[in-house]
Amino acid sequence: MRRFDLKHVCEAQQFDRELLDVVFHTADAMKAALAGQNPYARVLENKIMASVFYEPSTRTRFSFESAMTRLGGKIITTENAKEFSSAAKGESLYDSTRVINGYADIIVMRHHEAGSAKRAAEASDIPVINAGDGAGQHPTQALLDLYTIQDNFQGISGLKIAMVGDLKYGRTVRSLSYLLAKYDDVRISFVSPPVCSMEDDIKEYLDKHQVGWEAQEELEQVLPNADCVYMTRIQKERFVNPEEYKNAVGKYILTYEKVQMMKPEAIIMHPLPRVNEIPKEVDGDPRARYFEQAQNGLYIRMALLYLLLQDE
Amino acid sequence: MRRFDLKHVCEAQQFDRELLDVVFHTADAMKAALAGQNPYARVLENKIMASVFYEPSTRTRFSFESAMTRLGGKIITTENAKEFSSAAKGESLYDSTRVINGYADIIVMRHHEAGSAKRAAEASDIPVINAGDGAGQHPTQALLDLYTIQDNFQGISGLKIAMVGDLKYGRTVRSLSYLLAKYDDVRISFVSPPVCSMEDDIKEYLDKHQVGWEAQEELEQVLPNADCVYMTRIQKERFVNPEEYKNAVGKYILTYEKVQMMKPEAIIMHPLPRVNEIPKEVDGDPRARYFEQAQNGLYIRMALLYLLLQDE
Amino acid sequence: MRRFDLKHVCEAQQFDRELLDVVFHTADAMKAALAGQNPYARVLENKIMASVFYEPSTRTRFSFESAMTRLGGKIITTENAKEFSSAAKGESLYDSTRVINGYADIIVMRHHEAGSAKRAAEASDIPVINAGDGAGQHPTQALLDLYTIQDNFQGISGLKIAMVGDLKYGRTVRSLSYLLAKYDDVRISFVSPPVCSMEDDIKEYLDKHQVGWEAQEELEQVLPNADCVYMTRIQKERFVNPEEYKNAVGKYILTYEKVQMMKPEAIIMHPLPRVNEIPKEVDGDPRARYFEQAQNGLYIRMALLYLLLQDE
Repeated sequence: MRRFDLKHVCEAQQFDRELLDVVFHTADAMKAALAGQNPYARVLENKIMASVFYEPSTRTRFSFESAMTRLGGKIITTENAKEFSSAAKGESLYDSTRVINGYADIIVMRHHEAGSAKRAAEASDIPVINAGDGAGQHPTQALLDLYTIQDNFQGISGLKIAMVGDLKYGRTVRSLSYLLAKYDDVRISFVSPPVCSMEDDIKEYLDKHQVGWEAQEELEQVLPNADCVYMTRIQKERFVNPEEYKNAVGKYILTYEKVQMMKPEAIIMHPLPRVNEIPKEVDGDPRARYFEQAQNGLYIRMALLYLLLQDE
Repeated sequence: MRRFDLKHVCEAQQFDRELLDVVFHTADAMKAALAGQNPYARVLENKIMASVFYEPSTRTRFSFESAMTRLGGKIITTENAKEFSSAAKGESLYDSTRVINGYADIIVMRHHEAGSAKRAAEASDIPVINAGDGAGQHPTQALLDLYTIQDNFQGISGLKIAMVGDLKYGRTVRSLSYLLAKYDDVRISFVSPPVCSMEDDIKEYLDKHQVGWEAQEELEQVLPNADCVYMTRIQKERFVNPEEYKNAVGKYILTYEKVQMMKPEAIIMHPLPRVNEIPKEVDGDPRARYFEQAQNGLYIRMALLYLLLQDE
Repeated sequence: MRRFDLKHVCEAQQFDRELLDVVFHTADAMKAALAGQNPYARVLENKIMASVFYEPSTRTRFSFESAMTRLGGKIITTENAKEFSSAAKGESLYDSTRVINGYADIIVMRHHEAGSAKRAAEASDIPVINAGDGAGQHPTQALLDLYTIQDNFQGISGLKIAMVGDLKYGRTVRSLSYLLAKYDDVRISFVSPPVCSMEDDIKEYLDKHQVGWEAQEELEQVLPNADCVYMTRIQKERFVNPEEYKNAVGKYILTYEKVQMMKPEAIIMHPLPRVNEIPKEVDGDPRARYFEQAQNGLYIRMALLYLLLQDE
């Protein structure tokens, strides 16, 4: 296995095919470990992870903290890190990061400003993992999305992926598109109302990497052929015309009836939280994999923490 | 010992006499353990408890987290769980609970809405303990109250219990009344101003279970005979007439002088926090047991965590 | 080594020379331990520290929690302790402290009111460490400041210390002055605009203990001779006249050029957070020790936790 040579995890682009394979292979090992007598239960016993959240994101924070704990590691945590940069005191991200370097072995940071993870990483001698930086990246979400597909199909090449909903502002579908371009013969359908359609930069990137894609307005057109339907929330505030919003919402709901149009072995994903784009009655369908997907976040984060901290 | 067959702890009514005996017996063992070389110090070593508090309640949260820690268990925690259901995102309690199922082995939940613990329990494959759901239940408080009486008198049958203060809105006295009805020959005195008197549903329940009770306005009438005086706060906002409030407050303060009217072996309880209904000078009286009562919360919660998680 | 006979840590004045030597000696051991196979990694394994913060101070809280964790101890934590004394419920600090006594082995408390640490200590059977009480004390900051000087010069007697900036309201420079008076032949230069000059009580205290001091307005006058330059923030709100503030700020910035006036073996300290009184380009100068100083907080707090809890 190639030596894991990442120092920080700031963006999905850092991961090439070989690194993805290492991470997914390790995530497989973590999943197997938690199903039995966990051989990793003490492997990070003397390590401290600082959860530094400039805004609350309990789901993501719990996922990282559970991952660290399942490896025997310890946690110091705040959802209140904005206090560092409070108007009254005005400390820089640089200084906060330097100080936390003295107290922890790894930093998991959530921040409201795009680019802040990279800035923290530059100040840091210990690894920094980006747990979402504003409109920027959320690389561990992208990894767990891809891992969920890989885990279900034992591979990614050759699959047909439909992405549905708010593709213009959705961070997850953008990152996932980047990562999918590293695999052969993947085909992507972008399904959205015109006001939320995927941006040109991604389409050009896919063209450059010979990834086939199509843009669609009709969800029902793509359901019969898709291997994976990746649903996202459509946010009201994107629409100028309320009538148009109402129409869009109705159109991009994956009802139980629509699910029956899908192939039996296809899967339904969603980054969560959902609002109404997947009704609860779909949860019982074997194709529904969004809670499994959330759980895969645990294995991916265990894998990254393990790979970043094991040799130190 | 009967196999502990509770899956979730949502309400006090789930506990019959036999289960209460198992819980109290286990709490005794926990109390003894902490007084010496704690043999349970690692028994939940590989378990994670998620403290999911939709509103802060530091005393209750600390009690549960200390209990889990004394058993070797690990914690992930938030006082900010409302963020899950924030207007912006609107995630359901069902989804949040399902996701947390992937990260923890047990959930301790505090919520502002009555009935939410049961709803979470229905969504959960791992145990859910209700740490208070709005105007609903707070079953571990009821258990620790009852345990404090049992611990002091080596039994509950035959005792005379006076409940004083806000009996109409006080969650603790209502739950305690339910639980006392499971024992023989208990007698309850409800001591309150008319505006805060105990509701009829409880009185009818007691009648149905042959528990003797009386309603009283005069605290001094009950003090000489009571084995246990359970004080609660009277809240100003219950009274329309400020003069009436002032009068009530004065009347239901358990002053040092009034304490001297009590039997020497009687005990004084209070769920805390207190405001002025028990003056600080009473703290030194050997009958004052409210801090011991708070500490019993630790043993009861250790017992429940142990019983719910030991065999998994 | 003298038996460590402190019960609580409320103020810097509790530490005499002999105790300071014990604490610093232990901090040395902690520093060495973390550089290798930490022999203290499990020494407080069965202890629980309650972080009770009535206001957030993530840097201080992380420092204490990292210290406890590096010794194997466990944490229960809140930044929300004001909720204890919320208007709605009105619990006293006394009651909260008594209750927490049942759940933890040591309390680290941050409070907004001067004197509250002492009040908590009076209510507590377990040790209380003051992590800052309003305009009052922050003794562990004072200890880590002094330790940083001691650690750099292998002693304190005979040194020339310059304190720069807001000396009137700065809690750290006041406490440090007290502690320096315990050593021989120390000389202090107070460098500040008149509106922020050191208060007379400290000057009188130094006179009484035969500590030489001078008051200065010109930073450049003291730089060539100082062994340690302790910088602090000047806060805008202290000045009536904005022009005067602007002038003061410019004058008390330790620019890279001014640093070159210092002796090669001198050191630059700052309690952090800084705003602009030390430009970032100074960070690379070997005399800059403020991040090392923050890290020394870890060793000092490990030392105190160890000394307070080891024998129990």
